[in-house]
Amino acid sequence: MAIFRLLILLTVAFSQSIIQISTEKLTLLASDRITGHRKIGKDLYCESWRFTVETNDAGIWDRVPARCEGFVKNYMTGDKYLSDLAAVAENSLAYAKTVKLSGDGKDAWIFDVDETLLSNIPFYASHGFGSEIFDEASFNKWVDMAEAPSIPASLRLYKDLEELGFTIILLTGRTELQRNATECNLQFAGYSNWERLILRKRSDHGKLATIYKSERRKHLEDEGYIIHGNSGDQWSDLLGFAVAKRSFKLPNLMYVVA
Amino acid sequence: MAIFRLLILLTVAFSQSIIQISTEKLTLLASDRITGHRKIGKDLYCESWRFTVETNDAGIWDRVPARCEGFVKNYMTGDKYLSDLAAVAENSLAYAKTVKLSGDGKDAWIFDVDETLLSNIPFYASHGFGSEIFDEASFNKWVDMAEAPSIPASLRLYKDLEELGFTIILLTGRTELQRNATECNLQFAGYSNWERLILRKRSDHGKLATIYKSERRKHLEDEGYIIHGNSGDQWSDLLGFAVAKRSFKLPNLMYVVA
Repeated sequence: MAIFRLLILLTVAFSQSIIQISTEKLTLLASDRITGHRKIGKDLYCESWRFTVETNDAGIWDRVPARCEGFVKNYMTGDKYLSDLAAVAENSLAYAKTVKLSGDGKDAWIFDVDETLLSNIPFYASHGFGSEIFDEASFNKWVDMAEAPSIPASLRLYKDLEELGFTIILLTGRTELQRNATECNLQFAGYSNWERLILRKRSDHGKLATIYKSERRKHLEDEGYIIHGNSGDQWSDLLGFAVAKRSFKLPNLMYVVA
Repeated sequence: MAIFRLLILLTVAFSQSIIQISTEKLTLLASDRITGHRKIGKDLYCESWRFTVETNDAGIWDRVPARCEGFVKNYMTGDKYLSDLAAVAENSLAYAKTVKLSGDGKDAWIFDVDETLLSNIPFYASHGFGSEIFDEASFNKWVDMAEAPSIPASLRLYKDLEELGFTIILLTGRTELQRNATECNLQFAGYSNWERLILRKRSDHGKLATIYKSERRKHLEDEGYIIHGNSGDQWSDLLGFAVAKRSFKLPNLMYVVA
């Protein structure tokens, strides 16, 4: 009994010390951040910036904060990004395997293209990994080259979904003018057998991605498709209306699409 | 000109080497993960698990994976959690300052309670930080003690929002039976002046949190409230229908609420 009591006392003392340390640290960090006196280290700052980007808390931003340039470059070219991509693909496949398919070809899975099926890291590597303001003309030249490599975890997921019997639909913010280049690039990167590649028409120009993509998902639903899954690196790929039964957010720290 | 050409060549060579390294690593990691041969390190595994939890990719899970027990404990009691909380509060306040208030008292901001305004870390510290199956009876005893400390970044945000003129509404999965304890605890932790504390009624028992919380948000809208912001540590606090204009996901690696 005495040992039992001692154990309880030790546990309580341990918890109390955690609370005290946490509360002090919390107050310090909160006041540092909110008053703008950023005494916290660069890495911690960028790690938390990353949290807010990936959870959509950060909303819309122009470019990677200057102090996080190195952080983003290391992340996007390192193991963590690859491991995150693989983990998302793993979750997606695990869910897909639980879906009962109707067999009528209307069981759809939607993929975004850029930073979801194809990687533009070679382009962004020569444009500061998102730390420079987006240069559309230069990016369009890169798109026309049709040389973006696949994201292997996505390519594997794509093939597994196809094998399971899903109808694969690609929904991208690229425009109809880029249809040829996009189809060539997807084939070059190993993708095939998509049911449809949906691009922005002239009437979609200037529309927020969330609206444009929601409208297209709604059309698909009206055609009888059931959108079981949706994979995209942007929250604007996933939110809005006519959302998929399950949405999968892929990592991307280089840019945000409104 | 020669120097210019050399620079271009070097840039291209550098990008190419990045692509090659990345593609090899991507393939390796993707195949390791998806075939279940997890050769990647524990930390990388847990970091990516964290990504999938915080982005909602992981969906519903029972408990923290055994191999990530230490990782979750370190995160929840360390600087990163505090820094993430502070960053989310900072985003929330920055957004709140851009909102034009009507001044009629109908400009609402919703807060969840557990792991949003109050921290249950002292409870979870003695329950394996989410690595044990949730023990409801034991948690209810902890709730009745009404001793959960505030999350300081949230307390500060709460006060700032109040000062800006937002009407603060608390929407929690706790039940009406816990109203007294919850009110006492909130006051003990420094919160005051909320407009309403909404708890689960008997008729809400068994409802998914997403449904219960969406229904209550809908009621608020029907009463004329404009829900400008919504802060919660669970995606089930934020998604569904009658969603807020901006939703803010706070970090939490200890548990998920369906």
